[in-house]
Amino acid sequence: MTTRIAIVGFGNVGRAFAGLLLQKREALRREHGVDAVVTAILTRHHGWARDDGGLDLEALISSPELPLRDSRPLIAVLAADVLVEVSTLEVRTGQPALDHLRDALRSGMHVISANQGPIAHAYRELEALATERSRALRFEAALAALPVFTLARYALPGAKVLRLRGVVDSAANYVLSEAARGVSLARALTAARRLGIAASDTSHDLDGWGAAATAAILSNVLLGSDLRVEDVRRTPITSVVAKQAAAAARRGKRVRQLLTITPDGATVGPATLSSDDPLFAVEGSSMALELETDVAGRLVLAVHEPRVEQTAFALLADLVNVARGGTTNIRSR
Amino acid sequence: MTTRIAIVGFGNVGRAFAGLLLQKREALRREHGVDAVVTAILTRHHGWARDDGGLDLEALISSPELPLRDSRPLIAVLAADVLVEVSTLEVRTGQPALDHLRDALRSGMHVISANQGPIAHAYRELEALATERSRALRFEAALAALPVFTLARYALPGAKVLRLRGVVDSAANYVLSEAARGVSLARALTAARRLGIAASDTSHDLDGWGAAATAAILSNVLLGSDLRVEDVRRTPITSVVAKQAAAAARRGKRVRQLLTITPDGATVGPATLSSDDPLFAVEGSSMALELETDVAGRLVLAVHEPRVEQTAFALLADLVNVARGGTTNIRSR
Repeated sequence: MTTRIAIVGFGNVGRAFAGLLLQKREALRREHGVDAVVTAILTRHHGWARDDGGLDLEALISSPELPLRDSRPLIAVLAADVLVEVSTLEVRTGQPALDHLRDALRSGMHVISANQGPIAHAYRELEALATERSRALRFEAALAALPVFTLARYALPGAKVLRLRGVVDSAANYVLSEAARGVSLARALTAARRLGIAASDTSHDLDGWGAAATAAILSNVLLGSDLRVEDVRRTPITSVVAKQAAAAARRGKRVRQLLTITPDGATVGPATLSSDDPLFAVEGSSMALELETDVAGRLVLAVHEPRVEQTAFALLADLVNVARGGTTNIRSR
Repeated sequence: MTTRIAIVGFGNVGRAFAGLLLQKREALRREHGVDAVVTAILTRHHGWARDDGGLDLEALISSPELPLRDSRPLIAVLAADVLVEVSTLEVRTGQPALDHLRDALRSGMHVISANQGPIAHAYRELEALATERSRALRFEAALAALPVFTLARYALPGAKVLRLRGVVDSAANYVLSEAARGVSLARALTAARRLGIAASDTSHDLDGWGAAATAAILSNVLLGSDLRVEDVRRTPITSVVAKQAAAAARRGKRVRQLLTITPDGATVGPATLSSDDPLFAVEGSSMALELETDVAGRLVLAVHEPRVEQTAFALLADLVNVARGGTTNIRSR
């Protein structure tokens, strides 16, 4: 079965996804019966490309500019079964990614988003739209490489998620891990930017805006709440917190930017953890989530220092599940 | 859609599963469109029950003996779409559970097994039989409440599992956790039996036979190898190891019964872990697995002190996935 894919956005994640499609093309065909072809790539500032029979990805991956420059086609006219949305994150509004997802769902495409914005801002609307048209709405890559939604969808059907705890912002966690070794906040942040894990805007990571967006997504999807990003109570990581991290390390403890979600709301802020805590070992740019459920017990899912290739893989996993016919969406309540 | 279920075995896990079906009946219908009815329950020594229109589970759960005593019907004649196999574990041979699964698959049923034996001994044969007949073979409950196969099936399609590390024997881990506090091996084992987490046969847990069976399953299913339970290199937990656990605790470290699996083979035995290790925080009867993959990074999945209700939930999750039409088996290679 051929699955035709349109990609919107072609930065690091988009290119890593295209590379993975090339690398795994044979395995997907052989093991999963999925024949994936990319029929269009659209970007805002770097041109676009289209071939309804399938683009030559190998050539495009290494080219900074896409061949076509004149007016970009509407998503609705593309010959695609699935839209993969990997455009630049705009966490405060979710745009223009939100409109891309709306257009694709209305045109009868399945959608896969690596972009937190639309899911944080409009999950209910998108889920209703997708379910109404029997299309899949998937967004595993919105949590980088932590496959928590796949876990919830397939390993926890019939169970209720009651509370969540987690370390979800790679950059904030990296900075605190460095601070524990005595590195200053400013130097650690510079290093995180050099590694490509920190946003250019400090407030995204240290003030907890990134974790707040993740909290809104997790709460709305897994607890069925209706939380806005700005409803999440944030306590920033300051140079005082960095000093506390160094002091905690001397006592065998660790300060983490901890996310907690209950039916009553969500908080993001520094917390001191002992080595008994399953989130203690989550060092550097690693991420982890602890899910407390009604009948499935308490589960922890962690990923060790994910890179952009792992975010790209989350898109690929969503693609295979959609191509295999999985259109069950996690219902907003 | 009605899914008719036959249950073989009706001990702790079987009864917990029946209880969960009652508790979640409405949620499964409403949220997943699955209408689950149990049409038969068979046991070896405690009678059997059958009603093609659906048994009254509420009455049967609390009754130690099932109503019918004369010759038990063959699995092939039952009016069931899915066989749930929860009979007593016989890890050395896999019988009689293995024959139950064979009979059910040959009769066109899907099978769900909580029993490690058949999967450890005959995964290739069962997988081939199921795939040939387009039936599902699921066994998440064989790893208690750690949903690693669901994770592999849905979160890791197209990725290769390269190596595994884990703490998978609740009783062995409980004993080592107690030993770290100075409790003797014998007393800790007695306590574990009282909690219902230890097998009556000491060698199952401390000599690593239980973990070896788990290793065979993980290796054969996730790495595509052809490992027998007796191929796993085992180092027993002795009273010397218990003393090492107490000494390690004084240095801030922990001794665990560590399982390691690579393409070259599997080992089970005591290992000293530091607090940086993601398996360090796995205390008491908790379990965890670390999966190293080619393109999906390094993931950790852990469950905190699972009880029999969580094993029952693993059966329920398999049931929902099968009822939703998931028949893709993880191919043996």
